[in-house]
Amino acid sequence: MNLLDSLRWRYATKKMNGLAIPQDQVDKIIEAAYLAPTSSGLQPFRIIEVTNSDLKEKIKAIAFDQSQITDSSHLLIFAAWDNYTTERINGVFRHTALERGMPEDTLADYKNKLITSYTPRDARDNFEHTARQAYIGLGTAIAAAAELRIDATPMEGFEAADLDTLLGLPEKGLKSVTILALGYRDEANDWLVGMKKVRTPKDEFLIRLN
Amino acid sequence: MNLLDSLRWRYATKKMNGLAIPQDQVDKIIEAAYLAPTSSGLQPFRIIEVTNSDLKEKIKAIAFDQSQITDSSHLLIFAAWDNYTTERINGVFRHTALERGMPEDTLADYKNKLITSYTPRDARDNFEHTARQAYIGLGTAIAAAAELRIDATPMEGFEAADLDTLLGLPEKGLKSVTILALGYRDEANDWLVGMKKVRTPKDEFLIRLN
Repeated sequence: MNLLDSLRWRYATKKMNGLAIPQDQVDKIIEAAYLAPTSSGLQPFRIIEVTNSDLKEKIKAIAFDQSQITDSSHLLIFAAWDNYTTERINGVFRHTALERGMPEDTLADYKNKLITSYTPRDARDNFEHTARQAYIGLGTAIAAAAELRIDATPMEGFEAADLDTLLGLPEKGLKSVTILALGYRDEANDWLVGMKKVRTPKDEFLIRLN
Repeated sequence: MNLLDSLRWRYATKKMNGLAIPQDQVDKIIEAAYLAPTSSGLQPFRIIEVTNSDLKEKIKAIAFDQSQITDSSHLLIFAAWDNYTTERINGVFRHTALERGMPEDTLADYKNKLITSYTPRDARDNFEHTARQAYIGLGTAIAAAAELRIDATPMEGFEAADLDTLLGLPEKGLKSVTILALGYRDEANDWLVGMKKVRTPKDEFLIRLN
C-alpha cells in the first residue's frame, strides 16, 4: 500500500538542507489539505504559504529558533476560524448551493441547525472545534508530502498570538494552530534521520470490541 | 498523484450497504492512523474497533440514529487521553528508549520539559491538545481508506459522554473524539453520492505571503 510505505518513509525532519521544492509539488500538498473533509463541510481553516526569507526569520524568532523554519523551502501555516458566525456559515452554504446549481434554501434546515447550535457557544469551544478540523487537513498534507518524498515537519512550538499578529490573522478572523515546514532532509546533519520510528505497542493502541 | 485521486473519489458516505470489509484491509487503515505523527511522538490517542452488532445498535442510539453506524462494516472510534500525566509521558519515553536501545535518561531533558509544561495545565487544555493529535490520525485513516476505495464517514454527531461510559473509556483515561464509520456506499440510496464536491474558493482558502 502506497500510503503505508510513504508513512514509514517520513519522519519529523529536524534539519533541512535549504533547497527549494518546485512550486507545483507544494501546490499538490496544499490541494490535499484543501480536499480533506471537515465537519459539515464548513472548511473552517485556511493555509498561509510562506517562502519569504525575511518573514521566515521573523517567524523563527517566535518559534524557539527552530532551524527548520528558515531551512525549509515553504512553510504552510494552518490557521482556523476564531469562531463560528452566522455570516461565515451562511457564506459556505451559499457557495455550496451555487456550485451545485441548487436553490439556496435547499439546505436551509441543516444550515439553521448549525447556526443555532454553534453560534451561541463560547468562542473558545468553537475554536477548539475549528482547530480540530485544521488537523485533519494537516494529517492529509503530511501524507501528501510523504507520497511525493518531500520532508515535512509539523510544528506546534511557536508563540501563536505573536504569529497571528505578524501575519495579520486577527483581522481575517483566524488563529494559527500549527506550522508545517516543507523541505528536504539534511541527511548528514539530522540526528533523528537514522533513528528507529517508535510507536505505542499496538496492543495498547488498538482496542477491539468485537 | 495517487492521494489526490483518492481524495477526489471519497465523500462522506451517508448510506452504506452493510457489506463486510476484509479485516486485513481495515488493519491497513488502522496502521495508517498508528503511523501518523503526533506532538513529541506521545501518540496520546487510541482506536477502539467495533464490529459487534449489538454494540453498534447501542452506539446508534446515542448518535442521532445515523444509519452509517449500523450499516458500516467497522467503526473506528478515536479516543484521546483525558489529560497528560507524568506517568503517561514517562511510559512513552521509557518505551522509546527501549526500542532504540538507548539509556533511559538520554532524552531526560526533553521529557522533563514536557512534564513541566503539560502536567500543571488544566485537564481541559491538555485534552484539547490530545484531541487535535487524534485528528491527525483521523485524517491519515481517511486517506488510507480512500486509497483502498473503502468508504469512510467521519462522524462527530454523538453524545460523547454516553459513548465514553458505554465503552468504559473513563477507566482507561480516554475520551471519545470522533467515529470513523468504514463500509461501502449504497450507490442507489445515497443522496450525496452524485453531488459535486464543493470546497471554499481556492483564493479564499490559500493566502500566499511570498
